[in-house]
Amino acid sequence: MNNFTFYSPTYFAFGRQTENEAGQYIRRFGGTKVLIHYGGGSVKRSGLLDRVIASLKTEKIPYVELGGVMPNPRSGLVYEGIELCKKEDVDFILAVGGGSSIDSAKAIAAGVKYSGDFWDFFDGKAEIQQALPIGTILTIAAAGSEGSGDTVITKEEGMYKRGAGSDALRPVFSILNPELTFTLPPFQTACGIADIMAHVFERYFTNTKDVEITDRLCEAVLSTMVRESPKVIKNPSDYEARANIMWAGMVAHNNLCGVGREQDWSSHVIEHELSALYDVAHGAGLAVIFPAWMKYVMKHDINRFAQIAVRVWGCTMDFANPEATAMEGIHRLETFWSSLGLPLNFAELGAKEEDIPFMVRNIGLKEGETLGSFVPLSNEDIEKIYRLAL
Amino acid sequence: MNNFTFYSPTYFAFGRQTENEAGQYIRRFGGTKVLIHYGGGSVKRSGLLDRVIASLKTEKIPYVELGGVMPNPRSGLVYEGIELCKKEDVDFILAVGGGSSIDSAKAIAAGVKYSGDFWDFFDGKAEIQQALPIGTILTIAAAGSEGSGDTVITKEEGMYKRGAGSDALRPVFSILNPELTFTLPPFQTACGIADIMAHVFERYFTNTKDVEITDRLCEAVLSTMVRESPKVIKNPSDYEARANIMWAGMVAHNNLCGVGREQDWSSHVIEHELSALYDVAHGAGLAVIFPAWMKYVMKHDINRFAQIAVRVWGCTMDFANPEATAMEGIHRLETFWSSLGLPLNFAELGAKEEDIPFMVRNIGLKEGETLGSFVPLSNEDIEKIYRLAL
Repeated sequence: MNNFTFYSPTYFAFGRQTENEAGQYIRRFGGTKVLIHYGGGSVKRSGLLDRVIASLKTEKIPYVELGGVMPNPRSGLVYEGIELCKKEDVDFILAVGGGSSIDSAKAIAAGVKYSGDFWDFFDGKAEIQQALPIGTILTIAAAGSEGSGDTVITKEEGMYKRGAGSDALRPVFSILNPELTFTLPPFQTACGIADIMAHVFERYFTNTKDVEITDRLCEAVLSTMVRESPKVIKNPSDYEARANIMWAGMVAHNNLCGVGREQDWSSHVIEHELSALYDVAHGAGLAVIFPAWMKYVMKHDINRFAQIAVRVWGCTMDFANPEATAMEGIHRLETFWSSLGLPLNFAELGAKEEDIPFMVRNIGLKEGETLGSFVPLSNEDIEKIYRLAL
Repeated sequence: MNNFTFYSPTYFAFGRQTENEAGQYIRRFGGTKVLIHYGGGSVKRSGLLDRVIASLKTEKIPYVELGGVMPNPRSGLVYEGIELCKKEDVDFILAVGGGSSIDSAKAIAAGVKYSGDFWDFFDGKAEIQQALPIGTILTIAAAGSEGSGDTVITKEEGMYKRGAGSDALRPVFSILNPELTFTLPPFQTACGIADIMAHVFERYFTNTKDVEITDRLCEAVLSTMVRESPKVIKNPSDYEARANIMWAGMVAHNNLCGVGREQDWSSHVIEHELSALYDVAHGAGLAVIFPAWMKYVMKHDINRFAQIAVRVWGCTMDFANPEATAMEGIHRLETFWSSLGLPLNFAELGAKEEDIPFMVRNIGLKEGETLGSFVPLSNEDIEKIYRLAL
């Protein structure tokens, strides 16, 4: 096991009607003037924003609003948010929505406390040292941003998608009410499920040996997703299933499932080119890329793939031919994701074979560079993975 | 799933030599004058205390020391610690040791910030609102106090063992170096293993349905313990196995394994009478009580006992007779604990049948009162459980 640190200081309030406690939590965590940050009109139409505002009014906490966060949150709105916070002396940001609203709030929170251009954090020119405190009210189980210290923002000039991270970005509280996810359409729900499972896969396939506790915690999250996901596709208002998935989504990404070992996020990078080029949901792209990546790297550690096949997918170990078991696990994953309505290849996603060279170039590996660590991938490897996904 | 809150704000630094960073963490979390609190001479003999002090000196952080914490930490030393902290203007407590040292430090931390008698917190007269910040350097994987907000103290007058809890008692940082547990003798190691597993059992046997994620996380910790425990009994210096157990011990008790549902801590209460009367290790008493409790309550939810038998112990489900599977799981637990050198009955523990009525009375249930929730236990039930453990 590698040395590690683990820090997940967020106060989680989970369950029915917990959004009505937002004002109390802001008060407890020191907020006196709040920016409420959200995406489109759904939080208004659903009445969620009204309930949140009512809870702030009960606590007599003044606020300003900034809506309009887009699915891949943009730098333009972040600049706007930073200006607004400074002008209004905001000292607390409340994100209401999914990962995009939370990521945008995190970028604003860091930018307010920084004298330079906030994009410095995203292109490696500066490290985030401090940020305004953030609270979240989650409406989509997917990104895990409610419990993480990470944010991903797209810069409009050039459409660069970049990430930044700091413990200062971990929300001070996150409110998770599974009822708020009832209205999410089946396809978006399935994309969230793929994202959650991908967050675990990216931590599971590692070259660090003997971290049984982390393996088992990963498998716990995956097994839960396997059991609960079909229920919410069938019945979007299944509270218990929505609740299990929502909490699993947090556990999948606050890094409890990753401590003590090397991680490999190359599939996320390979997918980003798909969602950037075709404007498809990140989760849908992951459903296409992950099985292909798995098939390509499987022989590097057959036993690890056999382990997940047996422990998560319930395959019977073929001791005479472990590779068959490993491959069966990958096929079960494909069948599972397909059953949820997710695409599994370029055709189903609407991606084109002829764009592969462009996507490979766009990842930007320099001569001799590789991507990832489980199996370091060259440009040639990446191209083969895209082709396996055709 | 029941509504819940989850809050585990401790910064965990895990791995080899991490104790040398104690001074840096105290500095980061605001300590300027420290009480170093520990038990017997082992932390001195091993050189651990010297290394910790060296790390404080590097950061130029002044400190005072208070050793002498006993296995069931006593109120007398807590009073002494409170006085010392006040006299020396201590603003940070560093506990070096196992659960006893940490629990004693927590009681001192709460007492310093309270004008009344600290015991008020333990007999229900007051609630802990604030406490000095606490850091820990863990040397025994067992109690989980390094990640919890709980403390158990024994009052010398009458030898009452009582608990108190507050989020204010959660350590601001905990340093976990598995190497520090190498010297723990096999029997104490096994007692710690039983304690860790018991912390999960007490959360696993619940009447709240459909909390698959919490079930799976519980099973993850238990499966890890089943795989790793025999290794440390055979080779006390097995770093990887010690590391898995140490981290599993934290995960078992910071309440991640318990959220969203009713818990049942009656076995802990029933055991306390054994360790109080015979001065045996808590973990040894748990190894005696838990299988008896399981056999007594099993019929209340055969499927739940069958589930743990299949998922943790690898039993094959007997669909024609699930009760047989459930019972096989309990037998596997007994065989497992016995193989680690733990006692399984009164005789092996050194407890006496004739003391049973005294122990039942001592639990102190009033007429009509019951203990626990999975199956509420009357005095008669508790007596039968003790007799099943003969």
